[in-house]
Amino acid sequence: MRMLIGDYLIRRLAEAGISHLFGVPGDFNLSFLEQVEAAPSVSFVGNCNELNAAYAADGYARTAGLCGLVTTLGVGDLGAISGIAGAYAERVPFVHITGIPPLHAVESRALLHHTLADGGYGNIGRCMAEYTVAQARLTPANAVEEIDRVLQACWRERRPVHLQLPSDITHLSIEVPDAPLVLEDSQGDAEQVALAAEHIATRLAAARHPVMILDADVDRFGTASLVADLAERGVIACVATAPAKAVLDETAPYYLGGYVGAASRLDIRELVSQSDCVIGLGLRFTEINTGFFTQKIRPEAFINILAHEVSLAGRSIPAAPMAAVLKALLAKLSPSTRTLPARPATGAASAPGQGDDALTHAALWPRVAAFLREGDVIIGEAGTSNTALLGTAFPQKTRYIAQPIWGAIGYTLPALFGSYMGSPERRHILFIGDGSFQLTVQELSSILRHGQKPIIFLLNNKGYTIERLILGERSRYNDIANWRYAALPHAFDREDKALSLVVERVRELEDALKQAEQADKAVFIELILPEMDAPEALKRFGIAVADYDYGPTGPRNASTQTHARKG
Amino acid sequence: MRMLIGDYLIRRLAEAGISHLFGVPGDFNLSFLEQVEAAPSVSFVGNCNELNAAYAADGYARTAGLCGLVTTLGVGDLGAISGIAGAYAERVPFVHITGIPPLHAVESRALLHHTLADGGYGNIGRCMAEYTVAQARLTPANAVEEIDRVLQACWRERRPVHLQLPSDITHLSIEVPDAPLVLEDSQGDAEQVALAAEHIATRLAAARHPVMILDADVDRFGTASLVADLAERGVIACVATAPAKAVLDETAPYYLGGYVGAASRLDIRELVSQSDCVIGLGLRFTEINTGFFTQKIRPEAFINILAHEVSLAGRSIPAAPMAAVLKALLAKLSPSTRTLPARPATGAASAPGQGDDALTHAALWPRVAAFLREGDVIIGEAGTSNTALLGTAFPQKTRYIAQPIWGAIGYTLPALFGSYMGSPERRHILFIGDGSFQLTVQELSSILRHGQKPIIFLLNNKGYTIERLILGERSRYNDIANWRYAALPHAFDREDKALSLVVERVRELEDALKQAEQADKAVFIELILPEMDAPEALKRFGIAVADYDYGPTGPRNASTQTHARKG
Repeated sequence: MRMLIGDYLIRRLAEAGISHLFGVPGDFNLSFLEQVEAAPSVSFVGNCNELNAAYAADGYARTAGLCGLVTTLGVGDLGAISGIAGAYAERVPFVHITGIPPLHAVESRALLHHTLADGGYGNIGRCMAEYTVAQARLTPANAVEEIDRVLQACWRERRPVHLQLPSDITHLSIEVPDAPLVLEDSQGDAEQVALAAEHIATRLAAARHPVMILDADVDRFGTASLVADLAERGVIACVATAPAKAVLDETAPYYLGGYVGAASRLDIRELVSQSDCVIGLGLRFTEINTGFFTQKIRPEAFINILAHEVSLAGRSIPAAPMAAVLKALLAKLSPSTRTLPARPATGAASAPGQGDDALTHAALWPRVAAFLREGDVIIGEAGTSNTALLGTAFPQKTRYIAQPIWGAIGYTLPALFGSYMGSPERRHILFIGDGSFQLTVQELSSILRHGQKPIIFLLNNKGYTIERLILGERSRYNDIANWRYAALPHAFDREDKALSLVVERVRELEDALKQAEQADKAVFIELILPEMDAPEALKRFGIAVADYDYGPTGPRNASTQTHARKG
Repeated sequence: MRMLIGDYLIRRLAEAGISHLFGVPGDFNLSFLEQVEAAPSVSFVGNCNELNAAYAADGYARTAGLCGLVTTLGVGDLGAISGIAGAYAERVPFVHITGIPPLHAVESRALLHHTLADGGYGNIGRCMAEYTVAQARLTPANAVEEIDRVLQACWRERRPVHLQLPSDITHLSIEVPDAPLVLEDSQGDAEQVALAAEHIATRLAAARHPVMILDADVDRFGTASLVADLAERGVIACVATAPAKAVLDETAPYYLGGYVGAASRLDIRELVSQSDCVIGLGLRFTEINTGFFTQKIRPEAFINILAHEVSLAGRSIPAAPMAAVLKALLAKLSPSTRTLPARPATGAASAPGQGDDALTHAALWPRVAAFLREGDVIIGEAGTSNTALLGTAFPQKTRYIAQPIWGAIGYTLPALFGSYMGSPERRHILFIGDGSFQLTVQELSSILRHGQKPIIFLLNNKGYTIERLILGERSRYNDIANWRYAALPHAFDREDKALSLVVERVRELEDALKQAEQADKAVFIELILPEMDAPEALKRFGIAVADYDYGPTGPRNASTQTHARKG
């Protein structure tokens, strides 16, 4: 059949399950946006800027699946690129579509706005290729093949891809296939899969204290329930790195807690270091996952089940995708009579402070823990919020969104907007610090504009606290402007749809939580916290970062110098 | 002598005339920022995010000269890269310094946050190399040579450069030269310069109606006064492309007005097309400069004096830099007895509307023209503001800041912050539309935090008006949230240092202008304008863009279809 190229792209996006495109209009993408506006299957969601749009696409993809991002050449692409790189690092898939100048202009190297005005049209594509797994500049001749190739790669690798769509080809008609696009996971080689499963099953059968260490790919490749089944049938303890927070049910008996190398809880550290079978699941040995490379794992005990291959006994078994291997393993595995290691009793979390006491982190987080409920989407900005939430046990069926690898401050507010757009039926709760909030604040207006009803906790501790804990605890460069944060919902929304509160004392927090529980509207709560107050884990992290980054002769905070020099 | 590497870099920056570094702290740059904090010669100015920091550096460099930009690896670099690309396109020089992980981590390909966690440390540098004219990753071994090489290139090319500074080398001591760094313009080859000047002088002597067409490089290479001298002595009419707006004194008799190809004023179009000697000054044949490539210039009459060479009679004379050629030409040129073309009488600009009439663009801009005064720095955001200001005659010694080539909406608010930081003694006036303002709004807080006192006109016409005029005049994708803009200065600044006004009627505008004239504080004026109202030139531009971008079969706005199909 014949279709207009833009309409065909929209059809393929819809067949890939994409119903939302985030982005910002610009002259080179308007002809495509006209087609989107007319399409029943796909909606365009405008963001305040392109970086925010990329973060929104990322947040959407984490809860609701594939989506798209639409920008205009140059200014739009490079505005978004940090968010695209973040999605690449964190393995979050979305399709980035750039409206570019008409083909004749590109081919004649015309000097146009939004370019370097030197006739070069390759620079953007070269940059995007660093952070996407497939790229194409569409033409009437290649559109049919390239669209499918690029969309398949997006899904297969769970990473962003990039399509350049010239502004003058959207309304040209070409012959296209009738058959719908079906996205496919790679199945690998059945013999390799069987080989890997056999190896692992043998090792597990012989193991006395096996443990699985989860990383983000368990989530990204949809294998969490396979891992849970495996943990149950095989009686295998599980621990999760920060990128896999809440991927498993944290109340399940096989789930022990978070893994951070030597900074893990003592029983977890000992279990992993003494285990005779440690199975990584997409495990990446980043400094975040390993507590600055302090992991202790017996090399001969280690197996890593990666996205597309298994690393085992010092060799790699390729063409053995994670889901296929886990399924084969589950089929082979006999129920075990092992017992799970006991979890240390935690008891009811103590919640210090009461009444008119000033709010502190120590008072805040136990109350937050009690506030969370089954099914919540919980979003934690880098710094105090993420650190505290990593140490908080979550209820069942919660989802946690953070950006622990790329670690761009400001990510979470637009990510909340995107995630909410994709999963409006779930309660969304964001915790974000003042410094981070300032980077992407305008997306609060998109949240309110669309009538979303998240609960946003803005932690105001007057500056970049995570940086202060690393270096410059009293340095001016870590200061920021002290906004009237709670006035922003009013400024951004003429309909005043949000409830906005300021909390300085424990009693006010307790009241605010009650109001938030009952409100059928967006709730914005500014929490005033002492400037250098932070979760203990973050204080330790700050010292470790300074030791790692600045070396033995580099500077240290005066207050931590004693500790630092031990490192 | 011996110095710490970070201190030496600061010394070199200061010797290059750099006193301000914009940016955002991050763990990989904190050890350097500690040295900056302690240095009397250089100040760090924190921005709300990295894109804004790049725009601020750009704005600063346009009025006050070289400055720096400090980010952290990955998230910071890619956050800023669109602003860096913009500076490359527009030829604005600043030094971008990235704090990167410690050398040992880079060399061992450690998996760290702010990277793709794949061991690759080259991707950021490859992207930056697309938009900078020199790059280096500093080490103790290369720092002395690389710093000077990169700073010289920044100045010589008037474009951004990139230095990567590992976090663990800032406090290492190395042997450094005693002699200060002296930035040098390239002098070219004296014979080539003389040859070019001789050719041009001969052509000018024979010309009856010579005309010079200025582009941005006249400003960037500091040759405006040479051009003015040449115009006076040689009796040469001058016209300016958009990037050269207000580079010459617009009240001078030799200055005729703006040049935009066939969209120029009739007398200018005819002068250029009939001239027997057209001298381009850094002229780039972009669609913006040429009214979509409609320039008519007799090929045999055309000479282009470029930054480093002269293009003449179909050949290039290299090693002939603009300033040197202009100086040599001025020395050769005898006073001419030609007369300048008459400028059409403009008379006092009419200012329609009065009293309670609703504000329109027609009522606004003549009043703005009367409000501008000698010495102002006037900043015009892409879209209605820039278009209207290009058609407004400016008083003497004004400076105009816009980003006509890269054309990133949102550029001007952070650019205002930067420009004001560099030239606080000048009155700064910004005109910005609501859609653009939303991209970078948080930098308003930096302006207020530093006690700057600009006058900001926020043109609220409820959406992306420039896009509506191109395509989608009624399409939802061009809608944006309608903020309470005038409430933002209050939300961003607990000290309420700004005067904030809302103007809907002509009388209110006249009152607001009086208050702004007298206020010794920041003034924020929200102008409510009709949704599809715009300067006539922008309406014509919208139609031309649609014709160019979407081709004969592409979509057009219903209201302009008749015009469009003529194109």
